[in-house]
Amino acid sequence: MSDLVYLEKDGNIAVVTLNKPERLNAMDETMWRGLGDIMKECDADTDLRCIIIRGAGGRAFSAGADIKEFETTRKDKKSALTYGDLTTYGFGSIIECRHPVVAQIDGLCVGGGMGIASCCDIRICGLSSKFGVPVKKLGLVEAHEEMRPLVEKFGANVALEILLVGDVFPVADALRMGLVNQVVPDDQVAATARQFAEKIADGAPLSARWHKKFIYRLLDPTPLTDAEIDEGFDCYDTEDFQVGRRAFVEKSAPEFFGR
Amino acid sequence: MSDLVYLEKDGNIAVVTLNKPERLNAMDETMWRGLGDIMKECDADTDLRCIIIRGAGGRAFSAGADIKEFETTRKDKKSALTYGDLTTYGFGSIIECRHPVVAQIDGLCVGGGMGIASCCDIRICGLSSKFGVPVKKLGLVEAHEEMRPLVEKFGANVALEILLVGDVFPVADALRMGLVNQVVPDDQVAATARQFAEKIADGAPLSARWHKKFIYRLLDPTPLTDAEIDEGFDCYDTEDFQVGRRAFVEKSAPEFFGR
Amino acid sequence: MSDLVYLEKDGNIAVVTLNKPERLNAMDETMWRGLGDIMKECDADTDLRCIIIRGAGGRAFSAGADIKEFETTRKDKKSALTYGDLTTYGFGSIIECRHPVVAQIDGLCVGGGMGIASCCDIRICGLSSKFGVPVKKLGLVEAHEEMRPLVEKFGANVALEILLVGDVFPVADALRMGLVNQVVPDDQVAATARQFAEKIADGAPLSARWHKKFIYRLLDPTPLTDAEIDEGFDCYDTEDFQVGRRAFVEKSAPEFFGR
Repeated sequence: MSDLVYLEKDGNIAVVTLNKPERLNAMDETMWRGLGDIMKECDADTDLRCIIIRGAGGRAFSAGADIKEFETTRKDKKSALTYGDLTTYGFGSIIECRHPVVAQIDGLCVGGGMGIASCCDIRICGLSSKFGVPVKKLGLVEAHEEMRPLVEKFGANVALEILLVGDVFPVADALRMGLVNQVVPDDQVAATARQFAEKIADGAPLSARWHKKFIYRLLDPTPLTDAEIDEGFDCYDTEDFQVGRRAFVEKSAPEFFGR
Repeated sequence: MSDLVYLEKDGNIAVVTLNKPERLNAMDETMWRGLGDIMKECDADTDLRCIIIRGAGGRAFSAGADIKEFETTRKDKKSALTYGDLTTYGFGSIIECRHPVVAQIDGLCVGGGMGIASCCDIRICGLSSKFGVPVKKLGLVEAHEEMRPLVEKFGANVALEILLVGDVFPVADALRMGLVNQVVPDDQVAATARQFAEKIADGAPLSARWHKKFIYRLLDPTPLTDAEIDEGFDCYDTEDFQVGRRAFVEKSAPEFFGR
Repeated sequence: MSDLVYLEKDGNIAVVTLNKPERLNAMDETMWRGLGDIMKECDADTDLRCIIIRGAGGRAFSAGADIKEFETTRKDKKSALTYGDLTTYGFGSIIECRHPVVAQIDGLCVGGGMGIASCCDIRICGLSSKFGVPVKKLGLVEAHEEMRPLVEKFGANVALEILLVGDVFPVADALRMGLVNQVVPDDQVAATARQFAEKIADGAPLSARWHKKFIYRLLDPTPLTDAEIDEGFDCYDTEDFQVGRRAFVEKSAPEFFGR
C-alpha cells in the first residue's frame, strides 16, 4: 500500500486521504488500487463507525484519472479494460463498505474524482468547489459501471447534463442538481465533514450498516428474498436496541456497542 | 375501529385524522390497524375523489411509532415482525388506495409519521414543520418495506442523509430534498391541503385513479402486460371523456361523474 | 413530410421546428408522424452532432395534442390506440436518436408538448414559460408510455403532482421539480439553446452518442450483457480519443471527427 493513499484512524472514525496534491490528487493505477485496498481494510474493521474520504492539499478532492498516465495505462481498448477493473474496484469498495462514507470535498471534484464522491453516502463541499465530468473533451466515455452512481443517485437528467454538456461547474449548479448534502465556506469543509462523521458515529453502528445496505439493495429491483426481509428485523434482537430504548425512556444519551 | 383514527366525509373528499394529540399522534398498534382499515374503506368508496390525512391537535402530523409501546409490541425480533405486518398494512393501504391522498402536515412529521407522509401522493406542510427518521438513536432500523417509499420517491441520496445522519430537520432541508410539494404559513396548512384536495376532486376522478395507478406501476420495472398497456386507453370510452372534450370546446367547466 | 414540422441544418447542428404557430404548435397526426420521421432522418445522419427542437412563433414550444382534432382521431378507445402509436413513435424517435437533443422552450410547454420536452436530453426555457399536463380536465389519461419519461426522468413525486393536481405552472415550480436545465430571459432562449447545442457539438461526437445510449440503458434494470459492458471501452480504440488526448497534453482545442 502506497502513501499516495493513506489511512488514519481517530477512535471509530477513519480518514482516507488521496495524496498527490501536486497533481490535484489525480488518480493513477497505484492510487485506485490503494483506495480499494484501504476501503476493504476499513470494511473489515468492525470497530469503525464512519469513514471520511478527502484529498490532500486543500485545492482538490480529486482531479480524476491522471491523463498523463494514459499513454501507458489507457492507451487503447485492451489497456482501458484492465484500467476499468481498477476504477470499478475503487468505486465498488466504497459502495460495498459496510460503514457510511463521507466525502470531504475541498476544491476540485471532477472526472473520476466526481465518481469517487458519487459513491460516497454523504457529500460536503466548500463554496468554491467545482464539479464536472468533462471527458467528452478527451474523446472519452464513462463506461456503464463508471456512470452508474451518477444515474442511480442523481438521476438520468443530471447525468445527461454532466456528460453531454461536459462543463466544470460551480456549487450553485451542484445544489440545483442535488449533488451535495451541505455547502459551507471553504475553511469549514473539514470541520463540517468531521461533524457529520461524528453525528453518524454517535448513532447505533448496526443501524447505520443495515440502513446503508438496505438503501442500496432497494436500487436493485430484484425481489427481496425471505432471508433479506427477515434481516430487516434483526436489530430488535441486538443489545444496542435495548440500550437505545432504555436511553430514550430515561431521556439520556445512549452509548452503543455495535452488537 | 377506534376513534384514535377517524374518518370524516365532506362530499367527495374524505379526511382521515390520526387522533392521539397528547402523544403527538404517535402510532400504536390500534392506530396502524385503524389507518389501514379506514384507507381500505375509502378505497372501496368509489364516490370519493380525494383523501386528506392529518394529525389532530395542530402540533404534529405524527411523531411516528409510539416508543412507549415498544416494551410489549416491539420488544424483540419476533414481536417486531408482527408489528412490521401492521406498519406494512398501514403504508400499503395508502399507496394502494385508488384515490389520491394528500398529507396535511402540521408540525412534527418524523419516523413512522414520515413513512405515512411518504406514502401519500401530495405533501403540504407549514413553515415550522419538522421532518426526520432518527431511529439510529434507538438502535433501530427501518426494514426494507418501511424505507421503500423514501428511496423510491425521494431517491437514495435523500434516504441516506435522513437515515444515516438521523437529524430532525426544518423545512429548508425538506425543500432541498424534494420532500414537500408546498410550504405555507402554519395557519394556512389545513386550508391549502383542502385547496389541493378540491383541485384534485375537480378533475375527472377516473383520470386521477388511472394516473396514480400507472405512476406507481412504472416504479416496478417488470414489463407491462398487453392488458396493462391496453388499460392506458380505456379512458377514451368513458362518459367523462366526452364531458371533458365537450366542455373544452365550449369553454365551460366540466362536471365529471366518474364513469 | 409536411412543413408543419421542418428540419434545417446548420453545419453539424439540426433544428427541428414544430410549425403551427396559430395553434400554439398543437400536435396533429401529421405533425407526430413528421416529428418521428425527421428525428429518424437525423438519427441516420452521422454528420450531425446535436439537434434542437423548438416551436415556431415564439409563444409556445407546443400546446400538446390538438384537442380540436380529437373528434376524429381520438374519439374513442379504438382510434386512441392508433393515435397512441403515433405519439409513441414521436416520443421514441427522440429518445432513440443517437444524437443529443436540446429542447428550446419558448412560452407554453404543456400536455404532449411537455412529453416531447421530457424526451429531450436538455431543456432550456424562458422566464415566462409555462408547464403542465392538465389532461385530467379532459377526462383523459396519459398512457404508460406517454408518462414514462416524466416518471423516469423527474421521479414519481413530480409526475404525481403534475398529473393529479393538473395545474399549468410557472418556471419557479419547474425549477423546484427539476424540469429544466437552465432558465433565461425570454429573448435569450434561442441563443442559449444554441450555445448548449454548440457546446455539445464541440465535444467528441462518439462520446455524446455513447453517453446518451448508456445513460438510458441504465434506466433499464436488465443486467448488462458482456457485449454491452465491452462497448463501454470502444472509445479507446477511436481516432478521436487520440485527438483528445494529444490536445489535452498540448493544451490545444481538439478537433474531433466522429470516428
